[in-house]
Amino acid sequence: MPVGRGGERRAISLGNPGLPGDPYTTPTLWAAIQYLAPRENAPEHRHSQSAFRFVLEGEGVWTVVDGDPVAMRRGDLLLTPGWHFHGHQNVSDSPMAWLDGLDIPLVAETDQGFFEFGPDEVRTKATPERSNSERLWGAPGLIPVSCAGTRPQSPLMAYRWAHTDAALTAQLELEDEGVAGVIEPGHAAVRYANPTSGADALTTMRTEFHRLRPGTRTRASRISASSVWQVFEGSGHVVLNGTERTIGRGDVIAVPAWTEFALRAGGQLDLFTFSDAPVFEKLNLLRTEVSV
Amino acid sequence: MPVGRGGERRAISLGNPGLPGDPYTTPTLWAAIQYLAPRENAPEHRHSQSAFRFVLEGEGVWTVVDGDPVAMRRGDLLLTPGWHFHGHQNVSDSPMAWLDGLDIPLVAETDQGFFEFGPDEVRTKATPERSNSERLWGAPGLIPVSCAGTRPQSPLMAYRWAHTDAALTAQLELEDEGVAGVIEPGHAAVRYANPTSGADALTTMRTEFHRLRPGTRTRASRISASSVWQVFEGSGHVVLNGTERTIGRGDVIAVPAWTEFALRAGGQLDLFTFSDAPVFEKLNLLRTEVSV
Amino acid sequence: MPVGRGGERRAISLGNPGLPGDPYTTPTLWAAIQYLAPRENAPEHRHSQSAFRFVLEGEGVWTVVDGDPVAMRRGDLLLTPGWHFHGHQNVSDSPMAWLDGLDIPLVAETDQGFFEFGPDEVRTKATPERSNSERLWGAPGLIPVSCAGTRPQSPLMAYRWAHTDAALTAQLELEDEGVAGVIEPGHAAVRYANPTSGADALTTMRTEFHRLRPGTRTRASRISASSVWQVFEGSGHVVLNGTERTIGRGDVIAVPAWTEFALRAGGQLDLFTFSDAPVFEKLNLLRTEVSV
Amino acid sequence: MPVGRGGERRAISLGNPGLPGDPYTTPTLWAAIQYLAPRENAPEHRHSQSAFRFVLEGEGVWTVVDGDPVAMRRGDLLLTPGWHFHGHQNVSDSPMAWLDGLDIPLVAETDQGFFEFGPDEVRTKATPERSNSERLWGAPGLIPVSCAGTRPQSPLMAYRWAHTDAALTAQLELEDEGVAGVIEPGHAAVRYANPTSGADALTTMRTEFHRLRPGTRTRASRISASSVWQVFEGSGHVVLNGTERTIGRGDVIAVPAWTEFALRAGGQLDLFTFSDAPVFEKLNLLRTEVSV
Repeated sequence: MPVGRGGERRAISLGNPGLPGDPYTTPTLWAAIQYLAPRENAPEHRHSQSAFRFVLEGEGVWTVVDGDPVAMRRGDLLLTPGWHFHGHQNVSDSPMAWLDGLDIPLVAETDQGFFEFGPDEVRTKATPERSNSERLWGAPGLIPVSCAGTRPQSPLMAYRWAHTDAALTAQLELEDEGVAGVIEPGHAAVRYANPTSGADALTTMRTEFHRLRPGTRTRASRISASSVWQVFEGSGHVVLNGTERTIGRGDVIAVPAWTEFALRAGGQLDLFTFSDAPVFEKLNLLRTEVSV
Repeated sequence: MPVGRGGERRAISLGNPGLPGDPYTTPTLWAAIQYLAPRENAPEHRHSQSAFRFVLEGEGVWTVVDGDPVAMRRGDLLLTPGWHFHGHQNVSDSPMAWLDGLDIPLVAETDQGFFEFGPDEVRTKATPERSNSERLWGAPGLIPVSCAGTRPQSPLMAYRWAHTDAALTAQLELEDEGVAGVIEPGHAAVRYANPTSGADALTTMRTEFHRLRPGTRTRASRISASSVWQVFEGSGHVVLNGTERTIGRGDVIAVPAWTEFALRAGGQLDLFTFSDAPVFEKLNLLRTEVSV
Repeated sequence: MPVGRGGERRAISLGNPGLPGDPYTTPTLWAAIQYLAPRENAPEHRHSQSAFRFVLEGEGVWTVVDGDPVAMRRGDLLLTPGWHFHGHQNVSDSPMAWLDGLDIPLVAETDQGFFEFGPDEVRTKATPERSNSERLWGAPGLIPVSCAGTRPQSPLMAYRWAHTDAALTAQLELEDEGVAGVIEPGHAAVRYANPTSGADALTTMRTEFHRLRPGTRTRASRISASSVWQVFEGSGHVVLNGTERTIGRGDVIAVPAWTEFALRAGGQLDLFTFSDAPVFEKLNLLRTEVSV
Repeated sequence: MPVGRGGERRAISLGNPGLPGDPYTTPTLWAAIQYLAPRENAPEHRHSQSAFRFVLEGEGVWTVVDGDPVAMRRGDLLLTPGWHFHGHQNVSDSPMAWLDGLDIPLVAETDQGFFEFGPDEVRTKATPERSNSERLWGAPGLIPVSCAGTRPQSPLMAYRWAHTDAALTAQLELEDEGVAGVIEPGHAAVRYANPTSGADALTTMRTEFHRLRPGTRTRASRISASSVWQVFEGSGHVVLNGTERTIGRGDVIAVPAWTEFALRAGGQLDLFTFSDAPVFEKLNLLRTEVSV
């Protein structure tokens, strides 16, 4: 049963009350919690906007990207870069939920929106463990010779939680061993990258996962990019321009541009984050200030 | 027991009889079979020449790269990019052998050679399963945020056989499923890449692994780069300027620049190869010709 | 006499009636006609927005860019890239007018605006024929060795009409001689470039000058960038989505994204143009369609 | 009258007695004084080697590059990048001489040499003041829109002495005015650049012109690149690894890699220089050491 061509998607957009007009999370970023009921599917479309899904709950959904079904599980990051056809299909008996991130406001304000419907039926029956994109691009440091050369967007459509978790664990272990790797004491972080260039996985959004040891307080800093943070696991505090708020699993925080930002972990604190930093890096507009 | 500061290394260089003077394999590349006896070590040094080791036999040796011990096992590619300290240590009771590849002739002819001895003792006692470089850089598509930015050489010092083998297997399976990935029918190939840029893992040498299905014959082609091929497993034929020769496990083939080259697999044929192609790509000198 | 810290600048912004809110020319671009009365000056400031001035009338004004006075004459393009201090000073007894182009809407919508006042007095008394930036960067193909390396923005602050005119004349003469150079028959065009990279002179705006031979009709095309065209000399027609309008000296035309656009020259038609194309090229969003 | 297909060119190569074998100036660079008698021509050919000519004496010769005749006058730099057809024609009654620089040794040692004869007759009768390449690419900071995009080699085939001289004069005047521009006190220098990228004009050779005020002594430094210096005008001393030698107009000096080098001007000292530095920059091999 498709969600339907009318609504197309069932999503609760996280509209920032500080922004007029459409329910955007920051002036350039859209964040929403998307939900797919058991045995439901969302038909395919494509648009110039780049998108990702970061899975919060459940298992048993496939995002089909240009015909390649990509399994979704809690903690996985899935990409649907601009102008790739994509649909979703829940083949399980449980609902699923994920965080949807897009550059909708940026693309809208700059008049770059293009959209096309795909076929009404989601083009997959099979439920492979690994997508084709992972089979081609999922080995560390290996590139298919037939695909050599830089691409603007990552050809790897899924970044699995097991890898993310292991990389963060390793950074903290290396810190214990006196080997460089963490950003600052007690603070590990990985960036989801495009293996053909080493740049951000998407051209308009930076996506990262951060882990803080219990009790860690990050340096306060501000940056002209805006960002969204999702508490994946754990709890603690966020400090925005000097005001401290408690945060816990499932919370989503919008950090406007040039807001002083710091995190403080209660127990271990795991967060997914995305921002518009790559846009301003490319336009020579990004500025950063780290507090002493 | 060190191999000794006199000889430093025990290696049989594969000198091309067609080249005058020093025992070089091509005008730009050095290839050698290096051997480390049980409980032996080769003390640390560093040089401007870039090097790799592709492991042919055995297990139980560590190459220490700038203090980071990297385990070696058959089929693994290990890097020691220019000006990184490196030594070897055999902590097992068996000998080990690997293919050593360097840009020695290129660096010698262009007067770019610099060399320094390191400490006499190899700086490691431990025998970790994974090197620090793999713990930081070994997750597909993930980059430590603390290390963001492009580097000229790969920070990943080991490319493991299990990954290489799986990637080649996947390319051939995808071919069976009608999905693009192989270079040409029956011919899978991966390039060892620098995850910070998507470029070749080393600045002066291209390193790849190729797999041919039984019976596959590659298109004949010639390129102005010179290359070296090592038969890792299997047998078949190599055709050089129209002359066919049988090849089998362990054989090393030098392919001079602008020589017409093709491979023909008997059973499945697995080959490691390296070349100087990146040098000429960067200098706008590389030319290629594929036979119809 | 300064224009005054209140208003700071005397400019008629070309607000597009099709856009709500602030008087912007396109969703990303600001265009205005700025006017400086005799013996008047506009005090220095700097902002993250990039700006240029294309001189329409008069002579005798200096734009001071980071302390370097740059003379202005009809047909010259002057740059004030983001975060460079700049002021204007009319040392003549005549008024002056120019076209002001900025990325104000883009920077506003994406929250990247930063601003600082400079000294109240414009920092120059002298009236040099050539600015320092032209003395350092104004020789074709020559780069000061002390300044080698790529910069995001052009270090050359003035592109003189004599050079622009000569380059366009040469393209059309070469066309007569059968040598490639024009974009299409009868249509010459130059892009103002950053000599340190060959890219656009500014990071967020493309600036070009076009010349059409009498009677030339350009191919119709549409592009997802928006642009502004100023008729510098001559007259003719512009065709926007099939509707033809006459244009003449001094007219300014806004071309929204994805509008089919063509020009038809009466006599020789000279136009200055700027667009936001570099933004979308860098973000992999730019798309173009040329009519057959 | 052609010089003849036998010899093709009349050149005195500057063979370094410290190098065995062929008469090369450094391990990667070829330098020669080429001479063309009155009314003589040198027929066209092309090769993968990149070349330039720096004119020492005379006027009245055209180098034809891919059909485009380029006038030659004392102090001009002319390029013939790899694989461009080129010939020379002396239409005057006086002989001409120039410094010929090529990457012959580099290309020879790395097996990248390709060569083709062109037509026996030099393809030009006309004697234009400006070549087509200068008409298209000779305006400072302007790029033909039809040719936008980066190219590996400069499309500008001539860099005129008048521009070089003016740029050096300006750097020294700016120094007097307290404006940055010179490399070090009393030492002006320009690099011949590719206007499509800001990189070196040729992919394998750096070309520069240096001017020292009377009495200036440069900082001693060494670099792993090798270079050749030609005294264009004036006299002074060169210091190589601590040994000082007098130099005067017309002298050519080879500076091997990693040789400590300094210049001392008697009166004003003008020098043209070329080196292989871009090769090692691209291969991450270049190293530099400046004496305190």
